[in-house]
Amino acid sequence: MTLKSVLVANRGEIALRVIRACRELGIEAVQVYSSADKDSLPVRLADRSICIGGATPAESYLNRNALIQAAQMAKVDAVHPGYGFLSENAEFAEAVIAAGLTYVGPDPQAIRLMGDKAAARKLAMEAGVPVAQGSPDPVADVEEAVRLANGIGYPVLVKASAGGGGRGMRVMESEKQLREGLERASSEAAAAFGSGAVYIERYISPVRHVEVQVVGDGKDVVHFGERDCTIQRRHQKLLEESPSPIVTPQLRERMTKAACDLARSVNYRSAGTLEFIVDAARQEFFFIEMNTRIQVEHPVTEAVTGVDLVKLQLRIAAGEPLPMKQADVRFHGHAIECRINAEDSEKGFLPRPGKITELVWPAGPGVRVDSHAFASYELPPYYDSLVAKLVVWDDNRDAAIARMRRALAELQLSGVKTTREFHQRLLDEPAFAAADVSTQFVKDKMYAQHPMRHML
Amino acid sequence: MTLKSVLVANRGEIALRVIRACRELGIEAVQVYSSADKDSLPVRLADRSICIGGATPAESYLNRNALIQAAQMAKVDAVHPGYGFLSENAEFAEAVIAAGLTYVGPDPQAIRLMGDKAAARKLAMEAGVPVAQGSPDPVADVEEAVRLANGIGYPVLVKASAGGGGRGMRVMESEKQLREGLERASSEAAAAFGSGAVYIERYISPVRHVEVQVVGDGKDVVHFGERDCTIQRRHQKLLEESPSPIVTPQLRERMTKAACDLARSVNYRSAGTLEFIVDAARQEFFFIEMNTRIQVEHPVTEAVTGVDLVKLQLRIAAGEPLPMKQADVRFHGHAIECRINAEDSEKGFLPRPGKITELVWPAGPGVRVDSHAFASYELPPYYDSLVAKLVVWDDNRDAAIARMRRALAELQLSGVKTTREFHQRLLDEPAFAAADVSTQFVKDKMYAQHPMRHML
Repeated sequence: MTLKSVLVANRGEIALRVIRACRELGIEAVQVYSSADKDSLPVRLADRSICIGGATPAESYLNRNALIQAAQMAKVDAVHPGYGFLSENAEFAEAVIAAGLTYVGPDPQAIRLMGDKAAARKLAMEAGVPVAQGSPDPVADVEEAVRLANGIGYPVLVKASAGGGGRGMRVMESEKQLREGLERASSEAAAAFGSGAVYIERYISPVRHVEVQVVGDGKDVVHFGERDCTIQRRHQKLLEESPSPIVTPQLRERMTKAACDLARSVNYRSAGTLEFIVDAARQEFFFIEMNTRIQVEHPVTEAVTGVDLVKLQLRIAAGEPLPMKQADVRFHGHAIECRINAEDSEKGFLPRPGKITELVWPAGPGVRVDSHAFASYELPPYYDSLVAKLVVWDDNRDAAIARMRRALAELQLSGVKTTREFHQRLLDEPAFAAADVSTQFVKDKMYAQHPMRHML
Repeated sequence: MTLKSVLVANRGEIALRVIRACRELGIEAVQVYSSADKDSLPVRLADRSICIGGATPAESYLNRNALIQAAQMAKVDAVHPGYGFLSENAEFAEAVIAAGLTYVGPDPQAIRLMGDKAAARKLAMEAGVPVAQGSPDPVADVEEAVRLANGIGYPVLVKASAGGGGRGMRVMESEKQLREGLERASSEAAAAFGSGAVYIERYISPVRHVEVQVVGDGKDVVHFGERDCTIQRRHQKLLEESPSPIVTPQLRERMTKAACDLARSVNYRSAGTLEFIVDAARQEFFFIEMNTRIQVEHPVTEAVTGVDLVKLQLRIAAGEPLPMKQADVRFHGHAIECRINAEDSEKGFLPRPGKITELVWPAGPGVRVDSHAFASYELPPYYDSLVAKLVVWDDNRDAAIARMRRALAELQLSGVKTTREFHQRLLDEPAFAAADVSTQFVKDKMYAQHPMRHML
């Protein structure tokens, strides 16, 4: 089977990313768009485009029926969901398949399994992958939660089974807090994710966030090393790098094996990411969740391995086996990605959509920019605030940091506030250079005295 | 010794390239500019800038005194000449050194030796490097030329000793043509290069143009593989790639050894390129000349080796030894560079300077753009027509060609004519895909029927 045409069921830079991969494989790319995106770069660069509805995500990029209809109208062979929106929605994947089309992603079953965070945690335990101490299943009631938490020791994390990406998590410092907060956590989870199931986990802090990129073809699974995504605010990643500066070869061996084991246990097909928290001092790691889609930060992995992960997704969706064995995956140098968001980092990272008036991207050796923006582009207020992913590669981490500094200084973007200055400040932090940071670093160190610290 | 500041004695994309390397090494970059370049991107991005004169090259970038004065005024440690302009002018290098500054390039002696093409040819023969059959020294008179040519067999090439880069060359088809043309060739050489010395060489055709990148530190010389620059018009390169699709491992071994031997024979310091013509069918190669500077097409080498050649130039100029041995240089994948020139490829590649009205560069995985242009930039008519170097890297040659097609299709540049369409046509030629081309391919195949073929 070969794919002749793909519906790009997303927008922004990831839509462009998929279009580029399609183009290089000789696959026609059909771009969907909301009324707010009709003049966007993906629409301009795709082979064809189809309007699927109004500006809000619910009217367009989250509108399953509109997307399936567009795919049928355009007579495409396959649908690529990108990240965000419906990319981890098992029902959408099923609907694509039910319409006789190929879903460029894992089997709906794997999406569903991994989407239930308590179930994924159980699977991990069965595959011998370390998870933080906690409840194997969602807790039945407050008394069970308290009993478990007292056994683990406070603080504990209460997590929504249907949550993910850091959403639906609360830290409980004491039995009192737990008793008072559990019900609210559960009803908030029900409102946000459609399920009130929550589970309990040991709260480990300070930690680093490290994830392993895998790609499976349903038979074999290969990993492409790890990404360190410790620099976050409110569980939103801001800067990612590969390799992780705190992962030793021994720890890498153990983590990547665990990642492949878990992916293999569900006969994983397509690209996926296993997220872990890592205690750098003890070189311990604990599985958090698996993301069953391509991730925002995948380019740092592409930079150090030379492998095009989106092309690989498309080839596997077309039925090809993995074209490489684990030993064929080689790692070179160091890559860093800075997310350039239209946000005011001095005002609690509030989104700042608006019109770009001047734009010259950084370029030259070792610099990659993935962006749907251009000079005179108006960022619509309906979607996330990502303007560009600025990715650099160089021989080693110090050189990559120097190159990122150079690239950030080169960026000329006027009209909207961006997180450029945040990244410049971050790269100047001695603790960042020394890789001595945790997921709390931005909040507790960089913004410790900031009046809007509560928003971080 | 470390360099604290460097005068960038050039303009356009190569000035930006040098600024970027300086920035990443923590070196201050001081940009010179002509009155026509005062609003250029290198001026904007450099740490400081100094006007050195009027718009014409003679008034500015070729004005040795103005450059030395600027360097002294700016109190820089070193001068980087880029390519073109004064980059292979031994007197300029001497003047820089006489002013107490570091010249980022080879010793003036090496520039002078290699600048005299007949002398370089002799050196090559002494180093055991194959050269095309011909006169070891410049010919004394017509009778000597005829005697040599009759021995070699027609056609022969008459070459200006002080020429280079394809300038100062004429093909003589017969003794009659040689007798009639030699004197004119000599007086033209005298007018163009300041020396009437010419020499005779066997004319080999059809050939490919393949060059080897070397870097020396005065003691050791390391090569970074070859670049294939066969796609040319009037000896001006249009597209370059690495590795060469027609060089076998055995031929590569012999060519790179020859290149290193020759560079070692002059204790070469800095980056340099040994140019060869290659008879693909016979797997024979012949030395043409050495360029004692960084070359336009150096990024394809950077893409396949991961080595930053301009940073390496700066480190060696600062007195560091080569940081790698030959065995440390690894090669991955395939890279292609298309020169996007402001020229009308349907009108004999006539330059078309003007104002860019819209500009969105291609980007994403494996794409590098080196350019000083931006949306609303006005290309001045005084300098060369290079707008951008579009470089792609991928796993293998077919994938790189597919990626270049994608990148060319993505380029949105309005306001001036460019060579984009030429490159698109070229990549669609089955002979290009099959690597079955010679230096005459553009003229003899792509433009065989074109009314302006004589300009190619």
